[in-house]
Amino acid sequence: MALARIARANLRRSGSAFGNYASEMDLLCEGRSYTSKFSSKSPYYHVNSKAGGNLSYIPYIKEQNLMNLFSLRGISGTPYYQHPSANTERAPEESELEVEQDEPKYAGLEATKLGEKPRVVVLGTGWAACRFLKGLDTRIYDVVCISPRNHMVFTPLLASTCVGTLEFRSVAEPVSRIQKALSKDPNSYFFLASCTGIDTNKHEVYCEAVNNGGLPREPYQFKVAYDKLVIAAGAEPLTFGIQGVKEHAFFLREVNHAQDIRKRLLLNLMLSENPGISEEEKKRLLHCVVIGGGPTGVEFSGELSDFIMRDVHERYTHVKDYVRVTLIEANEILSSFDVSLRQYAIRHLTKSGVHLMKGVVKEVHPKSIVLSDGSVVPYGLLVWSTGVGPSEFVKTLNLPKSPGGRIGVDEWLRVPSVEDVFALGDCAGFLEQTKRPVLPALAQVAEREGKFLVELFNKIGKQNGGKALSAKSIPVGEAFVYKHLGSMASVGGYKALVDVRQSKDAKGMSLAGFVSWLIWRSAYLTRVVSWRNRFYVAVNWATTLVFGRDNTRI
Amino acid sequence: MALARIARANLRRSGSAFGNYASEMDLLCEGRSYTSKFSSKSPYYHVNSKAGGNLSYIPYIKEQNLMNLFSLRGISGTPYYQHPSANTERAPEESELEVEQDEPKYAGLEATKLGEKPRVVVLGTGWAACRFLKGLDTRIYDVVCISPRNHMVFTPLLASTCVGTLEFRSVAEPVSRIQKALSKDPNSYFFLASCTGIDTNKHEVYCEAVNNGGLPREPYQFKVAYDKLVIAAGAEPLTFGIQGVKEHAFFLREVNHAQDIRKRLLLNLMLSENPGISEEEKKRLLHCVVIGGGPTGVEFSGELSDFIMRDVHERYTHVKDYVRVTLIEANEILSSFDVSLRQYAIRHLTKSGVHLMKGVVKEVHPKSIVLSDGSVVPYGLLVWSTGVGPSEFVKTLNLPKSPGGRIGVDEWLRVPSVEDVFALGDCAGFLEQTKRPVLPALAQVAEREGKFLVELFNKIGKQNGGKALSAKSIPVGEAFVYKHLGSMASVGGYKALVDVRQSKDAKGMSLAGFVSWLIWRSAYLTRVVSWRNRFYVAVNWATTLVFGRDNTRI
Repeated sequence: MALARIARANLRRSGSAFGNYASEMDLLCEGRSYTSKFSSKSPYYHVNSKAGGNLSYIPYIKEQNLMNLFSLRGISGTPYYQHPSANTERAPEESELEVEQDEPKYAGLEATKLGEKPRVVVLGTGWAACRFLKGLDTRIYDVVCISPRNHMVFTPLLASTCVGTLEFRSVAEPVSRIQKALSKDPNSYFFLASCTGIDTNKHEVYCEAVNNGGLPREPYQFKVAYDKLVIAAGAEPLTFGIQGVKEHAFFLREVNHAQDIRKRLLLNLMLSENPGISEEEKKRLLHCVVIGGGPTGVEFSGELSDFIMRDVHERYTHVKDYVRVTLIEANEILSSFDVSLRQYAIRHLTKSGVHLMKGVVKEVHPKSIVLSDGSVVPYGLLVWSTGVGPSEFVKTLNLPKSPGGRIGVDEWLRVPSVEDVFALGDCAGFLEQTKRPVLPALAQVAEREGKFLVELFNKIGKQNGGKALSAKSIPVGEAFVYKHLGSMASVGGYKALVDVRQSKDAKGMSLAGFVSWLIWRSAYLTRVVSWRNRFYVAVNWATTLVFGRDNTRI
Repeated sequence: MALARIARANLRRSGSAFGNYASEMDLLCEGRSYTSKFSSKSPYYHVNSKAGGNLSYIPYIKEQNLMNLFSLRGISGTPYYQHPSANTERAPEESELEVEQDEPKYAGLEATKLGEKPRVVVLGTGWAACRFLKGLDTRIYDVVCISPRNHMVFTPLLASTCVGTLEFRSVAEPVSRIQKALSKDPNSYFFLASCTGIDTNKHEVYCEAVNNGGLPREPYQFKVAYDKLVIAAGAEPLTFGIQGVKEHAFFLREVNHAQDIRKRLLLNLMLSENPGISEEEKKRLLHCVVIGGGPTGVEFSGELSDFIMRDVHERYTHVKDYVRVTLIEANEILSSFDVSLRQYAIRHLTKSGVHLMKGVVKEVHPKSIVLSDGSVVPYGLLVWSTGVGPSEFVKTLNLPKSPGGRIGVDEWLRVPSVEDVFALGDCAGFLEQTKRPVLPALAQVAEREGKFLVELFNKIGKQNGGKALSAKSIPVGEAFVYKHLGSMASVGGYKALVDVRQSKDAKGMSLAGFVSWLIWRSAYLTRVVSWRNRFYVAVNWATTLVFGRDNTRI
């Protein structure tokens, strides 16, 4: 692969630290559709035909891609759009692309030198990235983690934070606690930034700092050279192109999503108490609709019904009879679970007052959704949890893809055809030629992959294969094999489901009820990353039990 | 007082639940200055000369005041600006003002009827309001609380939440827990709304629900009739008209202020690690400037220096040497404290690395402040705590005023010349004719006033004086006397000041150091309103001691 292989994209993932999902997506869409809004600073669009499929620019918002060009040209810090000679809408001459080193470099971390530790760059702070970071032998490697959020989210407990069972901070773990080297080692860093592009040939990633406290340039861009690159940048919620989802629905993937859901829920409860609100309007305001009957949707519905039965009935007496929860699913709820568990869940949810509904959403309006059969469902709160798909970042990367559009990897989680690039978690999937299925987007898959990869890294590192282009001759050992440990989901009311079958068709134990709920709680309590949060989760659970859920709207 | 006495204003207080302070103020200014932006819906401006000083309209943004007119005219729910016949810019004819009951009423709570419990309306959810609410005998009274936030903030501990010593939720107490009747009694309510006007003659307040989840009308306005009105709507931070304060500085009066400060602090710490940031820029980003050397400013500086010495040094190794704290005060820090305590504080803060500076701020720019001596101080975080003054709401109320512009009250916290209206806390002050000094804007003053007033209310209520205009003949008993219990302030590093002198010139015990810090902590722990939060504060303190402060940026 002598030709430059350049993959560029925008890693502003859903619900990242610097804004809500809807506006993120707006930005992306604006960029991609060339709205007139930005025509005065037209994006620098260029497809170099000589470079063929290997060199392409994905143009998007404003100057974002210009920085990539700098890095390529080795031009110094002055942003392109401030160069008086830099007219937009012209293709760069080829010679420009080859000019290097005759001007000061763009700020960033240069390639590691002989004698320095190899540098691993990790994109992301989700389950996969954090498990990898946790296990990395920092005596062998320096590590740089790049992500728009500085913490990992303990996603299985996120639904509990929306209604106040748990505090937000109890489910978030700062990445600098997971891997202490990030804050302590002189050559390891955490950068609060989005990755905007990768040059696999030059072994560099291009980044943009999150929107900021007045840095010298805006956006503030830099590059980081890597010896090994680990892409664990996650996925984005699927909306199936349905109009209005991004604008009006809440997702449930980040702490700020949970915060927003909580705020809206409490706001609606209070607004519906205002004098003069009609019966119909009260019903609408207090109708919580959940789309998607996967574990997230079911757990959130269960938590909501708990909240309503215990806390709303006690603290919102004037409006308690108007609160309803509807869970809409196109097929079966909890389709990956054993059929007996599924039936248990249906019975339990119905008993707790959750209205289960089969339906396919056609349109989402500010106050109602329209189903494909034409029926209109008014709502006050809409939570969308219909699974995830490849992010914009992954889509625009010029790397091989797995079925379903994830970054394609081999059995060792390597991206074939380029060297020193690895992908794992929700953003990665096995290539078709591996003859393996793409694994589901689950925390346990991501975590297991992270564990596998970091062990591989530590092994390679010990044999001096850590540096760029130096691991070719080192045997990689056994391939990654995923063994499903089972699934769990709480359904509210101190009840949960535990399904320890290894696959949908295998046989195995399945359990539902209070004992399952105890298993569910203790299993998660032991999985919570730090002792601090383990303690906090336990304290939160205890106080909720004693004092009820907190309903401060802060 | 046969003439209508109408006082109208906008209760969007600083840092209220629905927006940041700066934008609030922008709105107010726009309204008051008649920007052309709203000329298409010109405010209905009218001063009825016949009513003289007693009837006046304070015009402000858009249709806000029109609702008041409805209520006055008894016009139904259709907003004024939707009436095709309602031309703006015309004065209403007198007959219109007298028309009543010939159209359905504007939504709201009507005056209580014979046989119904009297209704107390409380404006605000601060120290004064909550102490009052807590003690109210709800067997005698129905109670309606109106505030743009649904919780009380335990302000003395707010500074600790900015750096993660305490969680935000530990210092916030939902008002429905303080007075359970608000959520349980059929005729008691909490409304998440701002008060926009008071008609002391008709015994009605006019409200606007907080910006919202799509209520039928926007803004959603309603009225509430009262038998007794308690104004405890608080004060606003003083900016002395200095340009740029509202835009660039953070205040520290609400939970969302503390959240914003925390986010900015962590953001700046992370941004300064980005590659290519110059030394000078790092210094600026990590320069925390606190304006105002009162207890809040000193406590925040102390917490910051703790955070830097313990947590930043451990977790932001790359940039730790650039972090600095400067406390700027025009006169003396902690001027209300004993001189020996003041000297102790100065020594301790200086030792902890807080740079104390005398100076007067002239201008505030996005990245620097200019002092009156011309020197320029670059900053990354600017916290403004120079005390409070009358809010816009109070300023526009057509009620007697105390020296300093607060609502003027007599020794029983009654607003003289109107009946059934009481004011307390930071928004109220003794009238000049009482020959008493205006009390300082302190939590303990507000709390003591709340306690006094609620006892008065319960006494009057027991003698059937709860209803409107029915308390005239009931003796009010002894007047309110404020006895200062002393002042406390922590200065960081497990040190605090305790000054139990009753006034600045009195003699009494004063104490500084670790024992004071223990007193400080235990005093506040016992003052925290609920057992739930008392438990959480203790747990927070313990975990901070064991695990250090949390640095998740969520």
